Amino acid sequence: MGNTFGHLFRVTTFGESHGGGVGVVIDGCPPRLEISAEEIQVELDRRRPGQSKITTPRKEEDKCEILSGIFEGKTLGTPIAILVKNKDTRSQDYDEMAFKYRPSHADATYDAKYGIRNWQGGGRSSARETIGRVAAGAIAKKILRQVAGVEIIGYVKRIKDLEGVIDPDGVTLEQVESNIVRCPDAECAERMIELIEQIRREGNSIGGVVECVARNVPKGLGEPVFDKLEADIAKGVMSLPASKGFEIGSGFAGTLLSGFEHNDEFYIDENGEIRTRTNRSGGIQGGISNGENILIRVAFKPTATIRKEQKTVTNEGEETVLAGKGRHDPCVLSRAVPMVEAMVALVLCDHLLRHHGQCQVL
Amino acid sequence: MGNTFGHLFRVTTFGESHGGGVGVVIDGCPPRLEISAEEIQVELDRRRPGQSKITTPRKEEDKCEILSGIFEGKTLGTPIAILVKNKDTRSQDYDEMAFKYRPSHADATYDAKYGIRNWQGGGRSSARETIGRVAAGAIAKKILRQVAGVEIIGYVKRIKDLEGVIDPDGVTLEQVESNIVRCPDAECAERMIELIEQIRREGNSIGGVVECVARNVPKGLGEPVFDKLEADIAKGVMSLPASKGFEIGSGFAGTLLSGFEHNDEFYIDENGEIRTRTNRSGGIQGGISNGENILIRVAFKPTATIRKEQKTVTNEGEETVLAGKGRHDPCVLSRAVPMVEAMVALVLCDHLLRHHGQCQVL
Amino acid sequence: MGNTFGHLFRVTTFGESHGGGVGVVIDGCPPRLEISAEEIQVELDRRRPGQSKITTPRKEEDKCEILSGIFEGKTLGTPIAILVKNKDTRSQDYDEMAFKYRPSHADATYDAKYGIRNWQGGGRSSARETIGRVAAGAIAKKILRQVAGVEIIGYVKRIKDLEGVIDPDGVTLEQVESNIVRCPDAECAERMIELIEQIRREGNSIGGVVECVARNVPKGLGEPVFDKLEADIAKGVMSLPASKGFEIGSGFAGTLLSGFEHNDEFYIDENGEIRTRTNRSGGIQGGISNGENILIRVAFKPTATIRKEQKTVTNEGEETVLAGKGRHDPCVLSRAVPMVEAMVALVLCDHLLRHHGQCQVL
Amino acid sequence: MGNTFGHLFRVTTFGESHGGGVGVVIDGCPPRLEISAEEIQVELDRRRPGQSKITTPRKEEDKCEILSGIFEGKTLGTPIAILVKNKDTRSQDYDEMAFKYRPSHADATYDAKYGIRNWQGGGRSSARETIGRVAAGAIAKKILRQVAGVEIIGYVKRIKDLEGVIDPDGVTLEQVESNIVRCPDAECAERMIELIEQIRREGNSIGGVVECVARNVPKGLGEPVFDKLEADIAKGVMSLPASKGFEIGSGFAGTLLSGFEHNDEFYIDENGEIRTRTNRSGGIQGGISNGENILIRVAFKPTATIRKEQKTVTNEGEETVLAGKGRHDPCVLSRAVPMVEAMVALVLCDHLLRHHGQCQVL
Repeated sequence: MGNTFGHLFRVTTFGESHGGGVGVVIDGCPPRLEISAEEIQVELDRRRPGQSKITTPRKEEDKCEILSGIFEGKTLGTPIAILVKNKDTRSQDYDEMAFKYRPSHADATYDAKYGIRNWQGGGRSSARETIGRVAAGAIAKKILRQVAGVEIIGYVKRIKDLEGVIDPDGVTLEQVESNIVRCPDAECAERMIELIEQIRREGNSIGGVVECVARNVPKGLGEPVFDKLEADIAKGVMSLPASKGFEIGSGFAGTLLSGFEHNDEFYIDENGEIRTRTNRSGGIQGGISNGENILIRVAFKPTATIRKEQKTVTNEGEETVLAGKGRHDPCVLSRAVPMVEAMVALVLCDHLLRHHGQCQVL
Repeated sequence: MGNTFGHLFRVTTFGESHGGGVGVVIDGCPPRLEISAEEIQVELDRRRPGQSKITTPRKEEDKCEILSGIFEGKTLGTPIAILVKNKDTRSQDYDEMAFKYRPSHADATYDAKYGIRNWQGGGRSSARETIGRVAAGAIAKKILRQVAGVEIIGYVKRIKDLEGVIDPDGVTLEQVESNIVRCPDAECAERMIELIEQIRREGNSIGGVVECVARNVPKGLGEPVFDKLEADIAKGVMSLPASKGFEIGSGFAGTLLSGFEHNDEFYIDENGEIRTRTNRSGGIQGGISNGENILIRVAFKPTATIRKEQKTVTNEGEETVLAGKGRHDPCVLSRAVPMVEAMVALVLCDHLLRHHGQCQVL
Repeated sequence: MGNTFGHLFRVTTFGESHGGGVGVVIDGCPPRLEISAEEIQVELDRRRPGQSKITTPRKEEDKCEILSGIFEGKTLGTPIAILVKNKDTRSQDYDEMAFKYRPSHADATYDAKYGIRNWQGGGRSSARETIGRVAAGAIAKKILRQVAGVEIIGYVKRIKDLEGVIDPDGVTLEQVESNIVRCPDAECAERMIELIEQIRREGNSIGGVVECVARNVPKGLGEPVFDKLEADIAKGVMSLPASKGFEIGSGFAGTLLSGFEHNDEFYIDENGEIRTRTNRSGGIQGGISNGENILIRVAFKPTATIRKEQKTVTNEGEETVLAGKGRHDPCVLSRAVPMVEAMVALVLCDHLLRHHGQCQVL
Repeated sequence: MGNTFGHLFRVTTFGESHGGGVGVVIDGCPPRLEISAEEIQVELDRRRPGQSKITTPRKEEDKCEILSGIFEGKTLGTPIAILVKNKDTRSQDYDEMAFKYRPSHADATYDAKYGIRNWQGGGRSSARETIGRVAAGAIAKKILRQVAGVEIIGYVKRIKDLEGVIDPDGVTLEQVESNIVRCPDAECAERMIELIEQIRREGNSIGGVVECVARNVPKGLGEPVFDKLEADIAKGVMSLPASKGFEIGSGFAGTLLSGFEHNDEFYIDENGEIRTRTNRSGGIQGGISNGENILIRVAFKPTATIRKEQKTVTNEGEETVLAGKGRHDPCVLSRAVPMVEAMVALVLCDHLLRHHGQCQVL
């Protein structure tokens, strides 16, 4: 229980890192949306391993197959099932994982909870699960773009202590995709790439911060008091593997300001629209979008799998040591960008449908 | 839609700051729990305005009344409805609010979404809504304590740039309640109180960070992949008024470490239990509690209502100015402590019931 | 758990027959609907005991109080809490019920499930719980009427073997309310009333069938495959106390026809609308409304409480006898009419909001 | 929206009759259950077309493939995805269906709701969708059997006016499976088969009633007031294609009895258990199982597809005629038996988990 996200645009993911495959069922997608496997594949390719020299060298194609819900290129309004088959290569690299718990991974807690786990490659706790989210997010993004012109752009804001200078109001997808680390500050991106390569050589790992902006979000999305827009986004991104923190608008730094400094004064713009001069609220006030850009940040810890030897225990309760084998990401941030975008898209799309209904939104 | 929280321990709050009253219906409470209105009142009194010189001087008794679900001092397993009546005092202080939107408040977004709002004192967006959460949280806390000895202790960690030194593993409720700002670092607390009083005199406001620890949490709570324990807690606290950020364990600071530094090595303790030497995971791995202390932090922005004059607009689309009248909190942090504890308790209790079932947990 | 009904128009009832009161929280009601306590009271008065000589002579006013969600006569879009206080009269008539299980009541199963029950007057299993449903139904009816001109009319179709001749397409509320048994076949109604009075004198009870029609239902409501319109209606009415069966359209009798006889042929009416010549489908095809009248029937068993002595057991596991005391309904059918209407209204309103969204439907 | 069923044992089906395939994702299945594709296939084979001379002669193997959630023969507690691929044979028999609405089918309502439909073979409204339900039901049955020895046995009670004499308390699966119509009254079964064959020759169709008993159901399942056990079962079976009515226990016939005749008197059996002498309640009182056999009946209308010519309309709004082509079931009852069993199993399993929690039930 707990594998479904959303209230009207409902996404259920399934699959372990090994076994038949991973995928998603999307229930509640508006009918008559033109969508193709190719469009979904674009996003999956941004997420997949082996896409560049700074990600894991594992080569996985992650080709998606649409099993239902689409007819002659258009959504039917019925559940859309999407499957990405697993390659059935059971690596010997994983043999130790059958009984040794990897530090800061979910091996021990899965065993404690379920009394069983698929120990090959992390099983259900593998980041491979996010394939389903990213596929669903591709559809959510298209709906949002088509209905309201919403643009959702994520990027790497910081790697360890290297922080890019980026204008969320102007940043473009092209800028983000112009380098392999997905940091639109080109100069900073180079230093990030160098740092990641050095960390990889050391057999270590690093983390950082992804920032994500949603532009042209219609006013009025969000459902107080529990399903506030930022609360749902927080849940979405904090359910991503390796995330440790969330901020909206001014975030933690906002607590250093006084109310007079922090408040967003209202004004009337040239179109007669109510706007705010500043956007410390991050596009959401009282849990409801106010039409300004929604701006969030997500902290991702350094990858737990490292090649250095660490102390740990076995599932039999004995102390031992473990050094990660196989090919792993020294830094997940560039691959986390499409995941964060997907979760923001899923939340916004769900709330868009709550506002308009499933069948009439398009 | 959006006023219910939880899957098995389901909490639905209702009520505006003015009108008949505010309250909560709790569905799914285990039967045969001894609970009294007095026990609930203890928590409400920690939340209520006018409790000290650093909160708003508004005097509200916030006496709770149990309408259903309890018989001869014990829960029935049926819905528990709790009501706190509003005093029907319609202050003239609010008259301007009928047409002027308060900056960084929810007035404008409620109007944009619903086309109507109860403008007296904030209506549904008032922090008065959290009365229902805190009442429900009191029951959740008791269940957790009784079933598993869980202790949930929140406290003020930081006010603006004044940060207390507090040991989350050892801090006690007595220490928290020993001063009016609820910072268990007594010396720091004094400086915080001074700062808040100074800010109040200036007609300004400040924010800060609440930290909350949950100790003795059973292993195995949390439902991957979307209802991970930290994801549900994040949603809970990010749905509180004025919250702008959330962290679990190492949080944003953890992104400055390498994987080798950040990982929590496992060991076997004297009781043969699997434990971690460090707790950068914050008590949760892979979305499931690992038996270590759960540790979170929540950023609260400076109170939006201030006495200083600010630019704003009217609901007719005209620019104007507004200065907050009435009696307001210069800093909500001390009152936010029981709210954060309540949300953590609601999430943990919900997941406890998912693990054990409603009727058999006690 | 289980006290909430609906997905977008969410109704949570609370309360036992004795204790503080019974009521409902409605979450998701469209904003800007004009509604008053008086309009809700009209429906509650059709449900309340003591309304005529054929119902229980218990006099209960069941005056409703709106606690939240309505401001200056209009809904806010926030939760509407409605309370009907219980009279705190703990009748000695109930003393035996503390330990003797009433046959075909819920006393024994509540004890088996919860290990505790409020034995006064049935506690949560009392039909008094339906007050919250009927209050919410009054609001749902008004929304449906205002948005689409939907009319929902229930009536007593059969009492024991006395069956009225009623045209569901033409029957009016006035006809239903023209007699105390709520059977619009006036002549049959008289015989029904006589029969009920005779049964009451015997200390016995009888049941029957309520039929309910919904007219002017927009095409397109219902969400295959599980939330088909008839499936949700079936759940709604089968959750009413004493219901034992449900039919839509041709129902059980339809199984005696061949497909050629049973199928509803399509034609084009004078307005160019697709219609069906017959309506054995009962207004729903494939789980979705087709614009024809929705027609359902609900079987209600004879009231379980009777004055005749019956064999039973105690909560200590001893055999004993019990004869109902106090004042009870010899037949619940006339009071069940507004309950059935309420459940149909709640389902239709929920699906209307799924189609249009909460905030834009009005 | 509406393709998920259950609260803790959550079943989401997907797939149209044509396209990639149909299937199900089961979220919340208890971990450590031994289950194989073969065990699931047994139930699918009872559902599949072409299984006997009285079903449609379409040959479909309906071989299931488990994509996730099972590892080394045991469930992981993670989502179980099961896929049955469609044969990609686009029959010319369906060409007319692209524009002619089949009477008493869902073609017209799907178009009205979604503005698009997969017209090949019924699309999502095809009974082929129930493959996912039956697969999930196979798992639910095994859990129920293993945890509590629950037996769920459905059978054909009536075909048109031919009604079998069957003892629900003693009937066995072997008796049900001993003939192709699944009526355990062997003599009546023969007459039923004859009637179905005659009806098929006429190009017509017939319906009937499936009865289903659940034995050894633990006391205490069901969640008043809305998620009463019979309410959830009613929703489940009324969401099956072609169902028109539902009864529990005495059902509609019970309304012809007086309360004195209808009530189930309690007694203490040899094991000291509270039992009822009769079972007009159908194993459920107040929405909660009482340990007696749960007994329900479901009315299925005659198959809508017939070879006889009928009047209908096109999607362009013109009147026309249509005669069913292809190979269809003259009577769905024998194939509906495993579907009804599946829905009963899904509800009971869901409520079992609500009682015990997902991870601890086995």
